[in-house]
Amino acid sequence: MNNLKLGDKIFKSRLFTGTGKFSSNEIMKQAITASGSELVTMALKRIDIEDANDNMLQHLNIPGVNLLPNTSGVRNAKEAIFAAQLAREALETNWLKLEIHPDPKYLLPDGEETLKAAEELVKLGFHVLPYVQADPVLCKKLEEVGTAAVMPLGSPIGSNNGLQTIDFLKIIIKQSNVPVVVDAGIGAPSHAAAAMEIGADAVLVNTAIAVSPNPVEMAKAFKMAVEAGRMAYEAKLAEQSVGANASSPLTAFLENLD
Amino acid sequence: MNNLKLGDKIFKSRLFTGTGKFSSNEIMKQAITASGSELVTMALKRIDIEDANDNMLQHLNIPGVNLLPNTSGVRNAKEAIFAAQLAREALETNWLKLEIHPDPKYLLPDGEETLKAAEELVKLGFHVLPYVQADPVLCKKLEEVGTAAVMPLGSPIGSNNGLQTIDFLKIIIKQSNVPVVVDAGIGAPSHAAAAMEIGADAVLVNTAIAVSPNPVEMAKAFKMAVEAGRMAYEAKLAEQSVGANASSPLTAFLENLD
Amino acid sequence: MNNLKLGDKIFKSRLFTGTGKFSSNEIMKQAITASGSELVTMALKRIDIEDANDNMLQHLNIPGVNLLPNTSGVRNAKEAIFAAQLAREALETNWLKLEIHPDPKYLLPDGEETLKAAEELVKLGFHVLPYVQADPVLCKKLEEVGTAAVMPLGSPIGSNNGLQTIDFLKIIIKQSNVPVVVDAGIGAPSHAAAAMEIGADAVLVNTAIAVSPNPVEMAKAFKMAVEAGRMAYEAKLAEQSVGANASSPLTAFLENLD
Amino acid sequence: MNNLKLGDKIFKSRLFTGTGKFSSNEIMKQAITASGSELVTMALKRIDIEDANDNMLQHLNIPGVNLLPNTSGVRNAKEAIFAAQLAREALETNWLKLEIHPDPKYLLPDGEETLKAAEELVKLGFHVLPYVQADPVLCKKLEEVGTAAVMPLGSPIGSNNGLQTIDFLKIIIKQSNVPVVVDAGIGAPSHAAAAMEIGADAVLVNTAIAVSPNPVEMAKAFKMAVEAGRMAYEAKLAEQSVGANASSPLTAFLENLD
Repeated sequence: MNNLKLGDKIFKSRLFTGTGKFSSNEIMKQAITASGSELVTMALKRIDIEDANDNMLQHLNIPGVNLLPNTSGVRNAKEAIFAAQLAREALETNWLKLEIHPDPKYLLPDGEETLKAAEELVKLGFHVLPYVQADPVLCKKLEEVGTAAVMPLGSPIGSNNGLQTIDFLKIIIKQSNVPVVVDAGIGAPSHAAAAMEIGADAVLVNTAIAVSPNPVEMAKAFKMAVEAGRMAYEAKLAEQSVGANASSPLTAFLENLD
Repeated sequence: MNNLKLGDKIFKSRLFTGTGKFSSNEIMKQAITASGSELVTMALKRIDIEDANDNMLQHLNIPGVNLLPNTSGVRNAKEAIFAAQLAREALETNWLKLEIHPDPKYLLPDGEETLKAAEELVKLGFHVLPYVQADPVLCKKLEEVGTAAVMPLGSPIGSNNGLQTIDFLKIIIKQSNVPVVVDAGIGAPSHAAAAMEIGADAVLVNTAIAVSPNPVEMAKAFKMAVEAGRMAYEAKLAEQSVGANASSPLTAFLENLD
Repeated sequence: MNNLKLGDKIFKSRLFTGTGKFSSNEIMKQAITASGSELVTMALKRIDIEDANDNMLQHLNIPGVNLLPNTSGVRNAKEAIFAAQLAREALETNWLKLEIHPDPKYLLPDGEETLKAAEELVKLGFHVLPYVQADPVLCKKLEEVGTAAVMPLGSPIGSNNGLQTIDFLKIIIKQSNVPVVVDAGIGAPSHAAAAMEIGADAVLVNTAIAVSPNPVEMAKAFKMAVEAGRMAYEAKLAEQSVGANASSPLTAFLENLD
Repeated sequence: MNNLKLGDKIFKSRLFTGTGKFSSNEIMKQAITASGSELVTMALKRIDIEDANDNMLQHLNIPGVNLLPNTSGVRNAKEAIFAAQLAREALETNWLKLEIHPDPKYLLPDGEETLKAAEELVKLGFHVLPYVQADPVLCKKLEEVGTAAVMPLGSPIGSNNGLQTIDFLKIIIKQSNVPVVVDAGIGAPSHAAAAMEIGADAVLVNTAIAVSPNPVEMAKAFKMAVEAGRMAYEAKLAEQSVGANASSPLTAFLENLD
């Protein structure tokens, strides 16, 4: 499988994970390690940035794992930019998952504010990965202001409904010059594989791993599914069609035996 | 992952494969080896049973691989029983994939004749794996006459349309006391993973591997996807739902910084 | 719209209904009348066949409405044939919806027993409409023994999940020389319309009407949806595709105004 | 069925249509009449605004039909505002379907520019109906700047793929205080019915009618499907579920006869 190039970094793993909803930091660490993920997103609000010995951060000190702070919880571009700068200072990284969702119920992204914030953050030197609707026009604009990737959602966040936006994802993938990372809605390894099969560059999975009764095994399952989907994409899948090809009957064969 | 018990045999791999449509016997051998499959189906009609040096058979002489002759091409129970006996004699195996499709266009199974043949073949000492519609009542009857497994289809054979019969497959899996092997329609690793996630015991994949531009890589992809789906099933997936959980806003956090 | 010919009868309405699960016989009567249905199925077990003044039957005495007794509740061909004869005697009709479901939980049809009973009942002079899985081979066999129609299911009965078996329904419709009536799974007018759009000759809807808070309005809704779907089928739908056609920009137009 | 209130107008019909792609103006007129539509969109670019006798306009002079000029072809807010003003002057209507799609290939909407233009156009006194992605946050913002409705798409325009965005449409419908009109992707009457069943206030259908071999019949089919879906919504549909309810066997009944 080809590696993934994102900004100036090379990733072997195409599975990005997160830190939310694990039952303990220790299980989180084990699951992330099992996932093989090299990019792990964490909400700024979950870090005690004044405490150098923050427990979560210590558990994320895993060889090969890069932190991707996210702005989850901000409601507009202004808050996002402020949060991003705090994150950079606290975590000493330019990488940022940009999430702006004014609505606390469905946590759906605000495209307008995201675009505004992305433009500013790119100028401030961030590698921006914006979480957005599967909106091909918006994704193109984000690419044009210099984001390192685009992160369209597959279905409503937390729904585990898979790739409902698949037609739009295909258009985004076809048009994009930056990596496309499918985020949100991926509730099962089969969903992750399906995203990779249509040519997504990576997927981000957090909840489906964290809330499983067995997060470590589930992390391994996603790891394999992502690799399977990517290999299938590179090896090329057959087309879908309506029915069977004709097959020769066994009759002649049987008659020859008489 | 748990092993699969089928009849009196234990299988580590839950991916069954086939021999059809490969561009050469050599590529077939490599792909089957890469798939890790321990059970490989082959059409009786494709074997030159009078020739001990048959080329295909030599290529299937892979350590750990068991042959599963199939009756593809027969049109009724009588032909199937005759073909099964030929296969047993020629290949020295009691294992049989029972396929009866009178219709040469869509190759869809004939449930009535399959049930009749299965009953007879079980009496004749065969381990019968019947290919059938995702028909819960028929699957139950096949189990009752003593088949070693049931092999319901996911969507029309050759369609690559995945698990269209998923509601019926779930009922079959719930009711079955013998392994359920999803056969037909699995066109992508994501489909195979999805079948395993709902609790199928195994899947059979042939065409999607054989007709890929890169069968060996595709075989590996399916191997991983099947393992991923099985691991997810054992680790238990989260439920699908409609929307997001509420998340705390970052506002309070940001205000605290002022 | 073309009329439907079923056996020796001509029907204007392509919506068949049933008598189960209504909150009262009066509401049942109003809903059936509103549906415009000319063929209404009723379970033999629901009739007091010794009472000429049976209340349900009186309520089904609607001009233009034909009764279609069904064998719901029988577990095999023998019981079905006996029940059919009782129904004929009691209701003075040769028409019969043949339902055989040995499993009381999912009420899924037994194809083997259905075929056996159908063959016998045709010989006994019945117009047989068998309820079956969306199994193209079985449907062809039923046609060959002389059934007046075939009634494949769209999804598990009572699931309201619509046309999950659509690929199989399309094959059945393409191959059939007798009317194809989609039965079971139709939970919304849009499902009924979809069945008609792919060329089904009729649909049978009972539960979705009977359990609605407003059965009479729901019956009207299904009536219109069935007609809409049929009209669309006759007028021919456009193909599904991936994206948009190019459209000329307004730019030139705007520039011309300068 | 309840009427639809849009801005200050009351509509009996919940089917909006368009003028594109008909083979002739005469057939367009007949189809629109058959559809019962009271709101018909037309591209500004298709009108010869200097010619009071424009042929298309004459054909749209149908009693009860209101014109809804659209800005199809404009690439940004500035062009849209200019086009809107031209339309108002030429057609003497404040109603406007706002379409901004910078991308000539997929014709997908630009949310950012649409929001900007909508805000300005509302101030200029227009009744704005914006065509947008099924983006709940954007739809809320459009409502807040005063649009008369929102018009989220069901699937890529011209794809005829129906309601792929259904989860998002449900959120939009739940949150919206202005009518929600599903636009784009509706390729069959069953799709239109499905949109109405989930509570959409109206649908806009153009291509599926215009390119049918029989536009007049197809228009009638859509008319009925929209009414059917709306009636079902008002009468309330049953829930979708997994399987059947238990049913009493006929056995006891049959035994009683012995």
